[in-house]
Amino acid sequence: MDAAQRAQIRVVLVDARNPLNIGAAARAMVNFGFDTLRLVNPYPVAFQEARSAVRAVGVLKTAEQCGTVAEAVADCALVAGTSDSERRELKHPLRRLENGARTIAKAAASGPVALLFGSEKFGLSNDDLSHCHWLMRIPTLAEQPSMNLGQAVAVTLYELVRSREAARARPAERRAAVAAESERITQMLVEVLKQSGYVNPVIGASTLAKTRRLVRRLNLESADVAVLSGMLRQILWKLNSR
Amino acid sequence: MDAAQRAQIRVVLVDARNPLNIGAAARAMVNFGFDTLRLVNPYPVAFQEARSAVRAVGVLKTAEQCGTVAEAVADCALVAGTSDSERRELKHPLRRLENGARTIAKAAASGPVALLFGSEKFGLSNDDLSHCHWLMRIPTLAEQPSMNLGQAVAVTLYELVRSREAARARPAERRAAVAAESERITQMLVEVLKQSGYVNPVIGASTLAKTRRLVRRLNLESADVAVLSGMLRQILWKLNSR
Repeated sequence: MDAAQRAQIRVVLVDARNPLNIGAAARAMVNFGFDTLRLVNPYPVAFQEARSAVRAVGVLKTAEQCGTVAEAVADCALVAGTSDSERRELKHPLRRLENGARTIAKAAASGPVALLFGSEKFGLSNDDLSHCHWLMRIPTLAEQPSMNLGQAVAVTLYELVRSREAARARPAERRAAVAAESERITQMLVEVLKQSGYVNPVIGASTLAKTRRLVRRLNLESADVAVLSGMLRQILWKLNSR
Repeated sequence: MDAAQRAQIRVVLVDARNPLNIGAAARAMVNFGFDTLRLVNPYPVAFQEARSAVRAVGVLKTAEQCGTVAEAVADCALVAGTSDSERRELKHPLRRLENGARTIAKAAASGPVALLFGSEKFGLSNDDLSHCHWLMRIPTLAEQPSMNLGQAVAVTLYELVRSREAARARPAERRAAVAAESERITQMLVEVLKQSGYVNPVIGASTLAKTRRLVRRLNLESADVAVLSGMLRQILWKLNSR
């Protein structure tokens, strides 16, 4: 992964609670040459402490705070989550870190990519996960899967820079929809489903989260977003004109 | 690297000064399935604190304290050091972590191997290095080479287990929708669009053909076909119940 690709990576920490872990994640970013850090809903004291630490790195000073995951990934065409186990409820494909990193390198050759890391204690929630196209797993032992946040970030970024083949990746020809576009489709579809009285028959996650996952799995192209939203707008208009 | 090989690895921390880093190194060992930790001349308070931490892992309880590097590596046929830069004085070969890890895996198949990590502040001294057969370097940026100790241990151990896990892990199975399934979705969507009064704004091909292409581009999974057709059926029902 070359410098231009690294510049497209957004490291997103969701609900981080420990200033040392926030600092460690930032330091690993500096070591491996990544510079865009976004914190979703960090514990304010932790964020403050991490930023004011004597050895706080520049990445932390320019870190962006976001209210929601949707905001943090809005400019990204690919959103990859990290998880220490399969999350069956939302049917995410789970890739080994190596394979995920290859795909990320390719995507980063043509646009922004978000890497989502969950809180130290709970990982990513179903709602966080619903924003992800797929998940990566670091090959820890099944009986001791849960890594320290700073170490998980370090290992993930190492894997991204490790491979030389990744640096040679060519840009994709089709432009994938960015998260804001997928989210627009998601919100419209949910509205249509609400107006239609559709109730998601599968229990365990909200209709919104399920629908978001469904839309992410569709691998929407940017060019199709306009068509789909036109369709949904019309359906919605018709449903409301009753 | 299998369990028998991992059991041959001795993680050796030289002059460690920070209890959090000692704890983090131990935790990474647990995550990746290594269990022999040796501390050479640790700062006594730091070692004590790390061991008595609430979340201290078993590896720390059984960690051996050694007075010298020589003692810590005495049973090892291969001693690999870690360094963030070339150390010309001793003319050590410097390998990329990946290459070093391959050699270590081979050696661990026939006997104990030591991995040496230096202090947070100074790395390994010339005297420490003189015990090493060669050095490995994690591919950090030349201008920001120095990693946090716990993260360096995590990345190194990840690299050791990576390839073995890679060989075993298989990508999650997804079954793509067959043409009949995609066509069912297409027909339902077209019916919904008709009922909604949607007119395709693009002239030159029928709405049906455009919609069919759109649905094919979505790369539907078979499992999603049921969900989508349930949604469309409900929307259609609602549209018709006006």
